[in-house]
Amino acid sequence: MTRTIGVALLGLGNVGGGVVKLLEDNAAAIAARLGARFEVRAIAVREVDKAKRVVDVDRRLLTSDVDAAVRRDDIDIVCELIGGTTLARHAMLAAIAAGKHVVTANKALLAEHGAEVFGAAERAGVDVYYEAAVCGGVPVIRVLREGLASDRVESLHGIVNGTSNYILTEMARTRRPFADILRDAQALGYAEADPTLDISGGDAAHKLAILVNLCFSTTIDVAAIPTEGIDIVEPIDLDYADKWDYVIKPLVIARAHGDPATGPIEARVHPALIPASWLLADVGGAKNALYVQSYALGPSLYYGAGAGMLPTAMSVVSDMIEIGRNIFARVAGAPRPTRPRPVQPRAAMALGELRTRYYLRFGVHDQPGVLGRLMTILGAHHISIAQVVQDGRATGDEPVWVVVVTHEALESDVRAALSEIDTLDVVRQPARLIRISGEVSPA
Amino acid sequence: MTRTIGVALLGLGNVGGGVVKLLEDNAAAIAARLGARFEVRAIAVREVDKAKRVVDVDRRLLTSDVDAAVRRDDIDIVCELIGGTTLARHAMLAAIAAGKHVVTANKALLAEHGAEVFGAAERAGVDVYYEAAVCGGVPVIRVLREGLASDRVESLHGIVNGTSNYILTEMARTRRPFADILRDAQALGYAEADPTLDISGGDAAHKLAILVNLCFSTTIDVAAIPTEGIDIVEPIDLDYADKWDYVIKPLVIARAHGDPATGPIEARVHPALIPASWLLADVGGAKNALYVQSYALGPSLYYGAGAGMLPTAMSVVSDMIEIGRNIFARVAGAPRPTRPRPVQPRAAMALGELRTRYYLRFGVHDQPGVLGRLMTILGAHHISIAQVVQDGRATGDEPVWVVVVTHEALESDVRAALSEIDTLDVVRQPARLIRISGEVSPA
Repeated sequence: MTRTIGVALLGLGNVGGGVVKLLEDNAAAIAARLGARFEVRAIAVREVDKAKRVVDVDRRLLTSDVDAAVRRDDIDIVCELIGGTTLARHAMLAAIAAGKHVVTANKALLAEHGAEVFGAAERAGVDVYYEAAVCGGVPVIRVLREGLASDRVESLHGIVNGTSNYILTEMARTRRPFADILRDAQALGYAEADPTLDISGGDAAHKLAILVNLCFSTTIDVAAIPTEGIDIVEPIDLDYADKWDYVIKPLVIARAHGDPATGPIEARVHPALIPASWLLADVGGAKNALYVQSYALGPSLYYGAGAGMLPTAMSVVSDMIEIGRNIFARVAGAPRPTRPRPVQPRAAMALGELRTRYYLRFGVHDQPGVLGRLMTILGAHHISIAQVVQDGRATGDEPVWVVVVTHEALESDVRAALSEIDTLDVVRQPARLIRISGEVSPA
Repeated sequence: MTRTIGVALLGLGNVGGGVVKLLEDNAAAIAARLGARFEVRAIAVREVDKAKRVVDVDRRLLTSDVDAAVRRDDIDIVCELIGGTTLARHAMLAAIAAGKHVVTANKALLAEHGAEVFGAAERAGVDVYYEAAVCGGVPVIRVLREGLASDRVESLHGIVNGTSNYILTEMARTRRPFADILRDAQALGYAEADPTLDISGGDAAHKLAILVNLCFSTTIDVAAIPTEGIDIVEPIDLDYADKWDYVIKPLVIARAHGDPATGPIEARVHPALIPASWLLADVGGAKNALYVQSYALGPSLYYGAGAGMLPTAMSVVSDMIEIGRNIFARVAGAPRPTRPRPVQPRAAMALGELRTRYYLRFGVHDQPGVLGRLMTILGAHHISIAQVVQDGRATGDEPVWVVVVTHEALESDVRAALSEIDTLDVVRQPARLIRISGEVSPA
């Protein structure tokens, strides 16, 4: 006897196609592990008659009626792989209302409407799993929720957007400008036609909100997370970083301050200089990684493919297997502490209160006394300098660069100093600021 | 109302003490996540009257009667933290027979008696969890069993013995000989008074057997795993490795060959040269890491503390939390496919059939024609050379070193060639062989 679990896929793009392919390719292993097989019984797509698909499927499974697909009696699990927050939200809530368990890879939806979704799931008594929403195929959600269940996370540093990491890696390798690398990445399929959400840090902020919820038992307003895109990095910054043994990586950072259960939460998304000796510095190309500092375990790192057809599908199908086990154990949808929920509201630490080290690049006129004026203003704002370099004489139309690495300073002090410096007559362009994350001990 | 789960600890050494400490330190977070609290109700120790303990405990909890401790009606979970395979095996089987769920960190016991233990647990309807048995606090068991449940592991490369990794890391840093570093490591507490099991690869082989069982659904005879200790590495090997951009790491390696479900399994434990650009090359000190190559996810890596009081205790208590959830969901002990079991016997690939690259170091007399004779013999055995260096003239009593890096070759061919070479009159000492693991694409 082989039991069967009925599945509806919403969306048949890259991830949906990957789920179909993986269910076929690994059918025997999945059946052996679950003691059951999955049967895809409905696939909701925008255009039923589209000629070309990522995978071949029985066209009789296709429907454009999402509501009908999620309500069918022979469906146990709905995989929401549409993306976005409009139709996906409607479809997920409809599936939950119809008593279906849900698997999703939708970070935007969970980051912006997680409380609504998990609340509805709890009332309906269904499971919502979302391993694929953060770091694609790397099982960081399970690691944090179950592997570190007895631990207390103190801080997170993650590379969670593959497109940004690919572009910065290529910029570091070739020293070509951001716009050129982006164009190549789009041609190669490593970046979307509209890459805004990736390169602006918006996608990473969604993932960070999910991680914060899981690690610090609180909700966080995505719109309030200080977020900078990777387009602030220029090839010359990579030159200086390299000279001082740093690498520039697109990071998400979160840290609990004060009381472990109630203190404020620091969360930010930006490219950062990190020591070249740190394991995260070796996470190249489109790969993702999460570096966790926790009370009992200390530092740990989880690395792998953060996107892609099969890696993402792997997480989705592993979630389906877990729901299948829950169904057979008759515990699917049971309220469990594994479900993320805001235990209590916690304050968000304002960016101005951040204490960290800074890389500052000033473009100035090549005339005597400039360096002294910059240093005087920084000093007046309590910013002490670890390293400074003024590079030669101006060539052509380029300003002369004064580049500074500070000791730990308060962000509000740094901002005040930069505002003052930017008004000087000797300054040719606004100062460039990139934070340094070197406070974590390297591997 | 706070529900309570009764716990018996067998052993109050480093790990047992860590469990007591973690249950206290993280009591609030654990209670919030589980909806219950753990109460340690018995601690079995060898000497009840021992004056000095790792942690302070209520002495009324102590007993030297293991059997009585595991049979108490108020105990739900037994944590076996004794180590070894005699008393620990007896105690674990007694606990299982008494209907208690078991958490263990005992890799030797599971590697050598896993079938017996899991068989008994299945018949008795109890859970056996063992996250701490491999890579200490890094949740690799959960990752492989649940995170990659839908995937198919193709190969594993792991650094799973912290002592060996610490010694090789220090040898690489200082170029001091093995014996000196070992003595320092013992003084610092990084190596046991009797370090044999660690440096011989025996401990790593136990962990590899557990990983093979989990990933390839088969049992493997630990005694049959080809195992070499790190004491074959000399400082001069680190010099050559460094020159050619390799690092020497204490690896466990496993790979499935042929049919994914039934083909033979390659498993081996030895120090290996690996490319310095590979993430595993940056896993230094006493840290552990597992690098997994799987069909859907591709390469992934899991890194952190493989030993130590709190990291190991963290895994033990996370397992206790999972059993607690199972108890409350009334699924504890239910037969589930998550339990490792030999799906079928699979052949072990003989080491002679291995195809890999080799680092070979020959100590020869400094006379004309030696290099030609070595190359001729290697060539006659179908071994082709990627790099060769003969280093200057002999100094003092040292032989002249001829060091060779081969292309992929068959181990039986290499062994035959070395046997022939070792009999030459110009050879002053037996050839040194270290395998190279560079076939995995670097990060």
